[in-house]
Amino acid sequence: MKVKLASSYGFCFGVKRAIKIAEGYKNAATMGPLIHNQNEIDRLKNDYNVGLYENISEVKPKDTVIIRTHGIPKRDLKELKQKSAKVINATCPFVTTPQQIVKKMSEENYSILIFGDEHHPEVKGVKSYGKDTDDVHVVMTKEDLENIEFKYDKIATVAQTTRKKEIYLEIVNALILKNKEVRVFNTICDATFENQDAARELSKEVDVMVVIGGKNSSNTKQLHSICLENCKDSYLIENAQEIDKNWFKDKELCGITAGASTPDWIIQQVVDSVQKH
Amino acid sequence: MKVKLASSYGFCFGVKRAIKIAEGYKNAATMGPLIHNQNEIDRLKNDYNVGLYENISEVKPKDTVIIRTHGIPKRDLKELKQKSAKVINATCPFVTTPQQIVKKMSEENYSILIFGDEHHPEVKGVKSYGKDTDDVHVVMTKEDLENIEFKYDKIATVAQTTRKKEIYLEIVNALILKNKEVRVFNTICDATFENQDAARELSKEVDVMVVIGGKNSSNTKQLHSICLENCKDSYLIENAQEIDKNWFKDKELCGITAGASTPDWIIQQVVDSVQKH
Repeated sequence: MKVKLASSYGFCFGVKRAIKIAEGYKNAATMGPLIHNQNEIDRLKNDYNVGLYENISEVKPKDTVIIRTHGIPKRDLKELKQKSAKVINATCPFVTTPQQIVKKMSEENYSILIFGDEHHPEVKGVKSYGKDTDDVHVVMTKEDLENIEFKYDKIATVAQTTRKKEIYLEIVNALILKNKEVRVFNTICDATFENQDAARELSKEVDVMVVIGGKNSSNTKQLHSICLENCKDSYLIENAQEIDKNWFKDKELCGITAGASTPDWIIQQVVDSVQKH
Repeated sequence: MKVKLASSYGFCFGVKRAIKIAEGYKNAATMGPLIHNQNEIDRLKNDYNVGLYENISEVKPKDTVIIRTHGIPKRDLKELKQKSAKVINATCPFVTTPQQIVKKMSEENYSILIFGDEHHPEVKGVKSYGKDTDDVHVVMTKEDLENIEFKYDKIATVAQTTRKKEIYLEIVNALILKNKEVRVFNTICDATFENQDAARELSKEVDVMVVIGGKNSSNTKQLHSICLENCKDSYLIENAQEIDKNWFKDKELCGITAGASTPDWIIQQVVDSVQKH
């Protein structure tokens, strides 16, 4: 099977940075999984003894704790600082930005709107920076706006870094028509676009697409959904072991891309495996 | 001919207010035509001796000068205050708002974008309030953005009060995709929408539409263009004298609407005249 890689794929700036930080703190532990990739988490454990806590209650007084790219809620950060010996903040700078915007804008008496998934750790963290969290609202679509009562007629908006810009614009447009001032911060990350644009192009020219990434990772799922629009034989896998030879029957060219949390060594294993079919 | 009036038409709040102000200052003069309607200007001259200056150079030291709804550039206001005895500001409050926004935002180091016609007096006035007028840009379409170099990556936008909201959103969306922060002030006036929405509805159900308003008035021209989308027999007139009986041949129902600068007494004359056909 012939293989073609997307022109942009895999780790974004924030993830590369967080892994490098983690590799620098042997015997530390991350607060929640550092990235949406079990294989990479295993590698950090085996090579650097970087562990993983699921709850702050597990943290012990002499621990060095690493905060992952998604960030954490403000009160959790405070609790961690009180509990552990050292807190290393590997929050992606592109996530720190919306956190600080929400803090500043709510202090200036703007109602806050976050475009994103309210259950996603990044959004929970960003939301926690509002002065009055009752006036920090989270929506996924413009229809969700109908149920919201803003405290002010001045709205500031941020977006979860991995969201689709088209839907953000729909939401922002609805806000502009109903409010005096809308302060729009484009916090959607370019890296997500670059991987998405490359996946879109590649999926148009191949017979089968393989998307490598965590099945819980929102950016990987979006990559998969974009590929499916152009190539119905698009498959989402976490590693080379999940490859099914039937996918390549009567096919000539296989496109490969990977989510922002997928390390290069896993991508290489998938490329090698697909080429053998 | 049966006649049906649009559910909203004619004078907006700002024009009603300006005329009332002018009626209160006998023997004063307006700086430029108070509204886009020669007949109403004549009435103010005849009934209240309110004159009209086209240039500041015509103003004499004992004059009382009235500033019209569109507002005037900052330096002209200053010159007028130095030259004349009294300056009465009848600038529409909905135009004062974008003037003050441009002033404040440019002081806070935002690049300024105005959606509107750079030759329109309202836009010239609003633009003049920028701290650095080289960084106050005026566009009519999103394509116009291509030629603009903003000084900052934080943009504040306002719109000429009579513009179409759909085009404003197109421009704003293009800005959001290219800039970190876009501060969108919705300065488009609801009165314009209300007349437009009513004209749209009415033009769908009638055989012929008559739009009354100044042929130089941007909001009247927009009303006419909206009516033409639904009713090809839509005519723009300034007064009853321009009515052509051929328009009503084989027609049953005539819709009538009027631009924001059209006084009720002219509308009544048109209604009376159309009913006779």
